[in-house]
Amino acid sequence: MSDPRHTLIERFRQSRALTESLAAPLSEADQQLQSTPLASPTKWHRAHTSWFYEAFVLQPAGIEAHDPRFGYLFNSYYDSLGERVARHKRGLMSRPSAAEIGAYRRAVDERLLAYLARLDPEKLAEIAPRIELGIAHEQQHQELLLTDILNAFYENPLAPAYREPDAAPAPSHSIAPGPADFRAQAGGVVEIGHRGPGFCFDNEQPRHRVHLNDYALADRLVSVGDVKAFISAGGYDTPTLWLSQGFELARAHGWRAPGYARLDDDGYAVFTLRGWHQPADDEPASHLSYWEADAIARFLNARLPTEAEWEHATTTNTAPAATSATSDTGDFADGPLRPCAALSAGPEWFGNVWQWTRSSYDAYPGYRAADNALGEYNGKFMAQQMVLRGGSCLTPRGHVRASYRNFWPPDTRFQMTGVRLAKDT
Amino acid sequence: MSDPRHTLIERFRQSRALTESLAAPLSEADQQLQSTPLASPTKWHRAHTSWFYEAFVLQPAGIEAHDPRFGYLFNSYYDSLGERVARHKRGLMSRPSAAEIGAYRRAVDERLLAYLARLDPEKLAEIAPRIELGIAHEQQHQELLLTDILNAFYENPLAPAYREPDAAPAPSHSIAPGPADFRAQAGGVVEIGHRGPGFCFDNEQPRHRVHLNDYALADRLVSVGDVKAFISAGGYDTPTLWLSQGFELARAHGWRAPGYARLDDDGYAVFTLRGWHQPADDEPASHLSYWEADAIARFLNARLPTEAEWEHATTTNTAPAATSATSDTGDFADGPLRPCAALSAGPEWFGNVWQWTRSSYDAYPGYRAADNALGEYNGKFMAQQMVLRGGSCLTPRGHVRASYRNFWPPDTRFQMTGVRLAKDT
Amino acid sequence: MSDPRHTLIERFRQSRALTESLAAPLSEADQQLQSTPLASPTKWHRAHTSWFYEAFVLQPAGIEAHDPRFGYLFNSYYDSLGERVARHKRGLMSRPSAAEIGAYRRAVDERLLAYLARLDPEKLAEIAPRIELGIAHEQQHQELLLTDILNAFYENPLAPAYREPDAAPAPSHSIAPGPADFRAQAGGVVEIGHRGPGFCFDNEQPRHRVHLNDYALADRLVSVGDVKAFISAGGYDTPTLWLSQGFELARAHGWRAPGYARLDDDGYAVFTLRGWHQPADDEPASHLSYWEADAIARFLNARLPTEAEWEHATTTNTAPAATSATSDTGDFADGPLRPCAALSAGPEWFGNVWQWTRSSYDAYPGYRAADNALGEYNGKFMAQQMVLRGGSCLTPRGHVRASYRNFWPPDTRFQMTGVRLAKDT
Amino acid sequence: MSDPRHTLIERFRQSRALTESLAAPLSEADQQLQSTPLASPTKWHRAHTSWFYEAFVLQPAGIEAHDPRFGYLFNSYYDSLGERVARHKRGLMSRPSAAEIGAYRRAVDERLLAYLARLDPEKLAEIAPRIELGIAHEQQHQELLLTDILNAFYENPLAPAYREPDAAPAPSHSIAPGPADFRAQAGGVVEIGHRGPGFCFDNEQPRHRVHLNDYALADRLVSVGDVKAFISAGGYDTPTLWLSQGFELARAHGWRAPGYARLDDDGYAVFTLRGWHQPADDEPASHLSYWEADAIARFLNARLPTEAEWEHATTTNTAPAATSATSDTGDFADGPLRPCAALSAGPEWFGNVWQWTRSSYDAYPGYRAADNALGEYNGKFMAQQMVLRGGSCLTPRGHVRASYRNFWPPDTRFQMTGVRLAKDT
Repeated sequence: MSDPRHTLIERFRQSRALTESLAAPLSEADQQLQSTPLASPTKWHRAHTSWFYEAFVLQPAGIEAHDPRFGYLFNSYYDSLGERVARHKRGLMSRPSAAEIGAYRRAVDERLLAYLARLDPEKLAEIAPRIELGIAHEQQHQELLLTDILNAFYENPLAPAYREPDAAPAPSHSIAPGPADFRAQAGGVVEIGHRGPGFCFDNEQPRHRVHLNDYALADRLVSVGDVKAFISAGGYDTPTLWLSQGFELARAHGWRAPGYARLDDDGYAVFTLRGWHQPADDEPASHLSYWEADAIARFLNARLPTEAEWEHATTTNTAPAATSATSDTGDFADGPLRPCAALSAGPEWFGNVWQWTRSSYDAYPGYRAADNALGEYNGKFMAQQMVLRGGSCLTPRGHVRASYRNFWPPDTRFQMTGVRLAKDT
Repeated sequence: MSDPRHTLIERFRQSRALTESLAAPLSEADQQLQSTPLASPTKWHRAHTSWFYEAFVLQPAGIEAHDPRFGYLFNSYYDSLGERVARHKRGLMSRPSAAEIGAYRRAVDERLLAYLARLDPEKLAEIAPRIELGIAHEQQHQELLLTDILNAFYENPLAPAYREPDAAPAPSHSIAPGPADFRAQAGGVVEIGHRGPGFCFDNEQPRHRVHLNDYALADRLVSVGDVKAFISAGGYDTPTLWLSQGFELARAHGWRAPGYARLDDDGYAVFTLRGWHQPADDEPASHLSYWEADAIARFLNARLPTEAEWEHATTTNTAPAATSATSDTGDFADGPLRPCAALSAGPEWFGNVWQWTRSSYDAYPGYRAADNALGEYNGKFMAQQMVLRGGSCLTPRGHVRASYRNFWPPDTRFQMTGVRLAKDT
Repeated sequence: MSDPRHTLIERFRQSRALTESLAAPLSEADQQLQSTPLASPTKWHRAHTSWFYEAFVLQPAGIEAHDPRFGYLFNSYYDSLGERVARHKRGLMSRPSAAEIGAYRRAVDERLLAYLARLDPEKLAEIAPRIELGIAHEQQHQELLLTDILNAFYENPLAPAYREPDAAPAPSHSIAPGPADFRAQAGGVVEIGHRGPGFCFDNEQPRHRVHLNDYALADRLVSVGDVKAFISAGGYDTPTLWLSQGFELARAHGWRAPGYARLDDDGYAVFTLRGWHQPADDEPASHLSYWEADAIARFLNARLPTEAEWEHATTTNTAPAATSATSDTGDFADGPLRPCAALSAGPEWFGNVWQWTRSSYDAYPGYRAADNALGEYNGKFMAQQMVLRGGSCLTPRGHVRASYRNFWPPDTRFQMTGVRLAKDT
Repeated sequence: MSDPRHTLIERFRQSRALTESLAAPLSEADQQLQSTPLASPTKWHRAHTSWFYEAFVLQPAGIEAHDPRFGYLFNSYYDSLGERVARHKRGLMSRPSAAEIGAYRRAVDERLLAYLARLDPEKLAEIAPRIELGIAHEQQHQELLLTDILNAFYENPLAPAYREPDAAPAPSHSIAPGPADFRAQAGGVVEIGHRGPGFCFDNEQPRHRVHLNDYALADRLVSVGDVKAFISAGGYDTPTLWLSQGFELARAHGWRAPGYARLDDDGYAVFTLRGWHQPADDEPASHLSYWEADAIARFLNARLPTEAEWEHATTTNTAPAATSATSDTGDFADGPLRPCAALSAGPEWFGNVWQWTRSSYDAYPGYRAADNALGEYNGKFMAQQMVLRGGSCLTPRGHVRASYRNFWPPDTRFQMTGVRLAKDT
């Protein structure tokens, strides 16, 4: 039988090692890049995820900070924990160096492991949820590290690849996906939200009842072929397909294709962590803003699902374990680091691209943020963002679950964002 | 028994006359003002509400436009109906003059009345909903006319009053309202949305089921006294009370009090259509952004209601008629044109100030926008806005009902916006 | 022999009457328009020119203000005289009304005339320069009134004409002007700056020596034909013709022609106070920014003159009187209110369009601004602007002289700005 | 007697080596920083100065580019030479690495040296001016490298020092400088502009005559003590001391002290390449915008000199050699890398801080830019900038001369900019 302390420590170690291995291919200069105020440098992610353990585990335990100045440098947004460097200036900190941040990480690891080793079981049980949170937090930043470096490399005229390009990127442009099959789901009063045991974020709770009308959910993601059809039909020039605010944004920015995509004489290509890639038509479309997702859904005579529909369908149609645990199948960050055509028959609910829902990110009924600084983790962002579900090819395997709620503003295109369609029945 | 044609015509006439009477105190120069891109000139409201009948009734009937250029000038946002003057440039059209727009209004009235007079009953029944829509549409612009001129006069250093100040604005600052009483409501599966007969906007439909947890709603609006307490406690400087985006906005703009309010040695005053006004503590607070509404709710250990909770409580606690019809009681635009302390015991659900809900403005399940240009009326704005309920002291009496959904972006402070608190039970 | 008091009073009266007659064709709504923060409403010009006499003549004499609030409303930029309404909000003051401003003007006139009437000759001689300044100041605002309403009407989709269009705007597009004749001027040490007697602004003094190389000045203004040739040759797309900052601005704004000009299937047209006008090729080009002026000069193998060259050539080649007095000939605001082809043989140095020089607006050697608030009139704007010379078809006749220095930022296109070319010899 | 080829090659080598030695203390991450769109990364400076030789020497000679993509990456602003990366995105190119850029530099050096070695004397004489230009160009970027890294380190909350702090920065705050002594100069017609032999930039020519009134120039730079007096007297809050545009800028940015300066309980400190430094009162003030320079001059009852006055005084009062050659004395980039109190009696005309003049940067009479891409070097920036003279403590020794014209927009504070006062006599 597994020792909880041992298991926790092992998961902590793996999590910390994964961050370092994701950063390993990046030079000191790469790790410095902040190509948009929405992104952070690799180096900063490495440091912030360490500071998180200091702020929420070590300092409450009275363990001295590695460097008292780092709270100012690496606090992300916790007002309760004091002033901090402006977000858009994270890329200006060439010091501390990547090596110094490596040393910071090791120092935090050592202190934390020493601390965990000396806790009695009762105290360990009390502290363990914070370690679990730290691991989940670091997973989120692992994904951000990848999406942020993708953005940075996209800005470089040399278009560097984070990992070497696919061996044989078969230019299979003619693989047109069939029309999506919509699977009917009976509505009624259902329950959504995390059902234990196991870790979840506070925003996945409380589990609660919602009423759903009958609905149907597509058995596949919106594909590159679907997006090409939208473009060919003049979708980007047809205001009646769009929400007003989205159409204005698209016009202001001159959008003619999804983010990181270009359409020219050589066809349709998408910039990925493997460099420029010419996707087959049956690959999932990615880097769609909410506005584009909504417009493409309308173009395809469908709509975006609500988050409750998505969670209900997912938990109804997958093995019970997935309700509270994470899905084992799907294209995650241990894969090719770009969206791929479905690997198996049947809907793959998880992985590949995050799926926009039509649900605004709000507190579940009865939600209460924690009274301490951790209350700032999720609660204060519950406005003007849309919920996404399912995880992506840049999400660490084991991070998401059916009740997992990701959220981004509707303008967002630099994340790995796509769509699964829904319909009324 | 009343003749439907006669009734319709009479209501049309009254609606048209009300607009003109609301504009009557305003000079040609006043009617020209556009003090923010979010507002429109009085003159433009007068013309646009006339163009609406041309675009959706007269032109479909083959009746020639009064002036073919006016479609470009007075189309608001209907992409299906062609190009139009940029919204922020509406205030630059000194021509056509106010008098010419008066003539335009009369010409549209004549043509429309002549058209209605000659319709056979069957055709009349077909056309009547568009007239009803035109009346409701004009009511919305009557409210905007008032809120927009309030904004314009606020910008004038002379602080002109739209209507002469209250006779004896009793400086009753010491009338502290008691704490709000929260009335418990049992949850479960309930229905919301418009239940006929009678007119409603498309966004109030379909009527549908939602599941509610038990909850409680305050029997009064958040008051000026509540806001003063928030200010005194440093609410505007306490990030943990706020949604993150709201706090950044408040800091960027240096907000220290609600919109149109000033706090100085003379105490708390609010700019109203009656000029500067020193409200008593028991008057409802107004000109709150969603961000402030949410922060004040948190400060008061409460939360904003969902729109379903609001509609459920309102229809449960008022006479059945109110479900589909409009409320007769409350402070509407035929009153003193500013918020007032409650006129009677018990909750006044309607009037005084619009009540922010925590519900994002989205389509009801099964909603479909019309296929024609009227489909642009509401549907394309269903993003990034919050629902408000109940009407205000600047809303024409007879315009709102329990199922009525108003919506504004959360930054909005130039509308007559306030709060009724809710709690979990 | 003329009585100085009588002459001064007569000139004052005429100046005041001219403003009112220029405003007369404009409705109350027209007079309210502020179509860019760079412009002011007609009504504001009428009030500000009255306030100027209150601030600099009547109040120093202890004569009570017509309305004590008007200092805040109608002070333009005199920091020494206190706070004032933000410049970009001048268009929001629908009150005081145009009629009230008319009354204000009359009240100021009465008080000023009564004051002048009772001064003894010695005191009159002391005060007269301020009246002269007031008249010259009002002339400047007369020109602004016209350029500002031109801008406002240009923004109106109905394109109203301030004055009815030319009777027979002969579409004489084929009148190609010959190449400009460059008249050689010998350089050396010359004097520029105002040489009395007569009024001048402080920035025209002190008269001082400058050294000029030999140079030549064109005998005509750059014409519409010249600009068409620049456009046809791709001038707007050729960065090497432009100053860097100008080219970036032109690209950012998508400039393809001068301000107020459009080029379409119907040819080249310019919006004027007489409505849209199709200029003949030999009419002077107008509404050029400094950047365009400089680029067109380079395209034509020439350059812009310095202000010293311009003043030297002008005073060398015209009757001596023009040195200190104003030119009698040329197209001024008592003419057709748009640029016209030259009315006579030989260079017309004055009128038609202001002529950009390559000289930055700076203080003349030995210049000292007045110690009082009038020191703010010109001195504090001596940076980042370019000098223009000669007056335009919207300048009141009698306002400019050879030493007159107008100045605008180089981006400016809403003024009546053109070019006379120069060359090294 | 020295061999011109040998001398040229030696100077080229030294120039190239200096850049590398200036970059040597900086890490790969430091070299990546672009802390404002006005600055460039160290790495970019290293590459651009190499590309310059490729573009203007090697490629015209038919020598293949090191990497054909580098023209796009490292062209600064030469439109004639094609498209290029947007200026504000220079900091996003983590690749090529610093090491690859080092290799690029060595490759260019080798090719250039091989090319120079094989030229016959006649061809060498033809090519030599381009090498001279390349060296002077690289010197300009050496200074920018230092000013840009100063800006970047200023943005880092850790405030790193480029070079270790002064050993004993004597806090000699009480060394109040005496009032400046103004040395009278007789005016008249004088000549300015470069007088050979030796290299100069095109903007220093043609040498030409100007007329000067009598004037006087201060024998010392405006000091930290002078600035403190300005601050203490409320200079930043006194609009009548300022040019209008400057005062608005100062207010908009909340300026209370010069750039990189802070005033707190610990006194006055300035951020330098040696870290935070508490200057003595007799040290020259630095990081002044033109606006502050002008306001401080007015506060001190003086004015800024014209560039002709400055050049005239400098050449009149120093050894003849300085007319065309560079000054040997003064605080340059081989010194302590921050402004210092005067090292000797008598005016030090050169070094320490650049001296703002009141002269707008314009072409000298008769100036013609080259017909080729080098014509873009200076000419297209001759607008909206002010001339500065004399060099600074971050300028490589041997770079400036009496006729040298530096230029920056008046808002600039991130350069090493100060003031020497002038007066009329």
